[in-house]
Amino acid sequence: MAEYDTVAIVGVGLIGGSIGLALRERKLARRIIGIGRRQNSLDAARKVGAIDQGVTNLAAGVAEAQLLIVATPVDTIAERVVQAAAAAPSDCLITDAGSTKEAIVATVDAALASRRGGPRFVGSHPLAGDHRTGPQHARADLFEGRTVVITPTDATRPAAVTEASGFWQSLGANVTTMTPARHDLALAITSHLPHLVAIALTAATPTEYLPLTASGWRDTTRIAAADAKIWQPIFAANRERVLDALDLMSQTLGGLREALEHGDNETLIATLEAAAKKRRDRDALGD
Amino acid sequence: MAEYDTVAIVGVGLIGGSIGLALRERKLARRIIGIGRRQNSLDAARKVGAIDQGVTNLAAGVAEAQLLIVATPVDTIAERVVQAAAAAPSDCLITDAGSTKEAIVATVDAALASRRGGPRFVGSHPLAGDHRTGPQHARADLFEGRTVVITPTDATRPAAVTEASGFWQSLGANVTTMTPARHDLALAITSHLPHLVAIALTAATPTEYLPLTASGWRDTTRIAAADAKIWQPIFAANRERVLDALDLMSQTLGGLREALEHGDNETLIATLEAAAKKRRDRDALGD
Repeated sequence: MAEYDTVAIVGVGLIGGSIGLALRERKLARRIIGIGRRQNSLDAARKVGAIDQGVTNLAAGVAEAQLLIVATPVDTIAERVVQAAAAAPSDCLITDAGSTKEAIVATVDAALASRRGGPRFVGSHPLAGDHRTGPQHARADLFEGRTVVITPTDATRPAAVTEASGFWQSLGANVTTMTPARHDLALAITSHLPHLVAIALTAATPTEYLPLTASGWRDTTRIAAADAKIWQPIFAANRERVLDALDLMSQTLGGLREALEHGDNETLIATLEAAAKKRRDRDALGD
Repeated sequence: MAEYDTVAIVGVGLIGGSIGLALRERKLARRIIGIGRRQNSLDAARKVGAIDQGVTNLAAGVAEAQLLIVATPVDTIAERVVQAAAAAPSDCLITDAGSTKEAIVATVDAALASRRGGPRFVGSHPLAGDHRTGPQHARADLFEGRTVVITPTDATRPAAVTEASGFWQSLGANVTTMTPARHDLALAITSHLPHLVAIALTAATPTEYLPLTASGWRDTTRIAAADAKIWQPIFAANRERVLDALDLMSQTLGGLREALEHGDNETLIATLEAAAKKRRDRDALGD
């Protein structure tokens, strides 16, 4: 038996499409409506089975939704949530899949604060993805065993957290909650910084040397292939913390440089061994 | 029919062990002798089938070798090659698998310059590996489709280049030749820098944030788990060029930081898109 009669997904790219596929495979929704600006993407999402129906009119698409997930680039999420909240049924739960949380949640909370009743919102961020984009790369198992961060605030009704947690868990994810600020602080280092590092390493490599790159370079730069239109707004939305993360990275690289320049092999080996241990500890945590 | 009667491999870790497995699977050697300092490693290599026989005495191990590969950490390769050259048959070809070339090749060339006849040497570097070490992770297909750089000098006899090329090609690799200096200049950026970047990114990540890392962080830091005892000597052997590569990386990161700080989205997007294209171009080159 389906958990939801109608689920609407705004933005049917890799994440939105994977939510649709997971809902369908797990028989959690009777009907999945995809909402997007481009008919092309909607058709592609329908073709892979991620949605039952694709519409370009947001208000029409959300009119019967019990659950709505906004999975667009971070610079458009707050606006879409506020628009959807005006058109969705009053018992609808709205969440998102944005990689930054503080600005989105603050904008939505402020816009919905004056309302009495109506759809509830709580921010989410599934720590799952791929450097490839588009519904054609969507996977029903994208969230299995992955972490989803839910970011309630003082304005969030507890029932919304419970329901959003249940939704992500029903897709196989593990849920953790924290404030939007703490989320953005951590993700600046664990996600936004690695993307900028991969981009810088790729940019620093002369094209003529590409044939001399092997698995080390390829692993380290893999996420540099990610979509600029998705990532530039993420960096901008979390700018101050990303700048701090870049400074931390520069200092750490500078420390390695100094040890190498001065032939301080003891420090070098200690740093390498500590990093190797931390990296193995991470793998021991599982996916 | 075997190409070689006896092949000796000094250092039976991941690379040396994989050479042994590949030779055996492709039936290229009648007998494979592993040479190492620790009986443990030799026993492990024999157990996985990488060598037929393990000995701790270098002179005894190389006495009947037609081909000798030195696959030890880079700070010990030159010494082992010179020792082996004194004990190996005069028609033996000696090569190595070191990640740096200039210092090794110069030391060996100088040591062997005064000799007339005797074993020939040419430096090699297979661009293949893994962050895991030891013969238990050796794979017969490690070199298939990978690039091996051979680094002849004015002192190298052309026949040695031909024979070394044939050897690596017989393991499925593609061979390219360049000077030791050019190799070290390129690899400082394509291999040594990514390792230091992965180590710095791991070191910069607070342990408490590890549960909030996903596939992006994990890809970008994967090679930080590599063995410090193998990598510290590589950084030290190629120090000046690695320092230059670190400076190039810092400048590139600094440029990204400046664009982000000043809200220069045009530059950011252009940099991201150029990196994504370069990264995809690399994948198009194949393994």
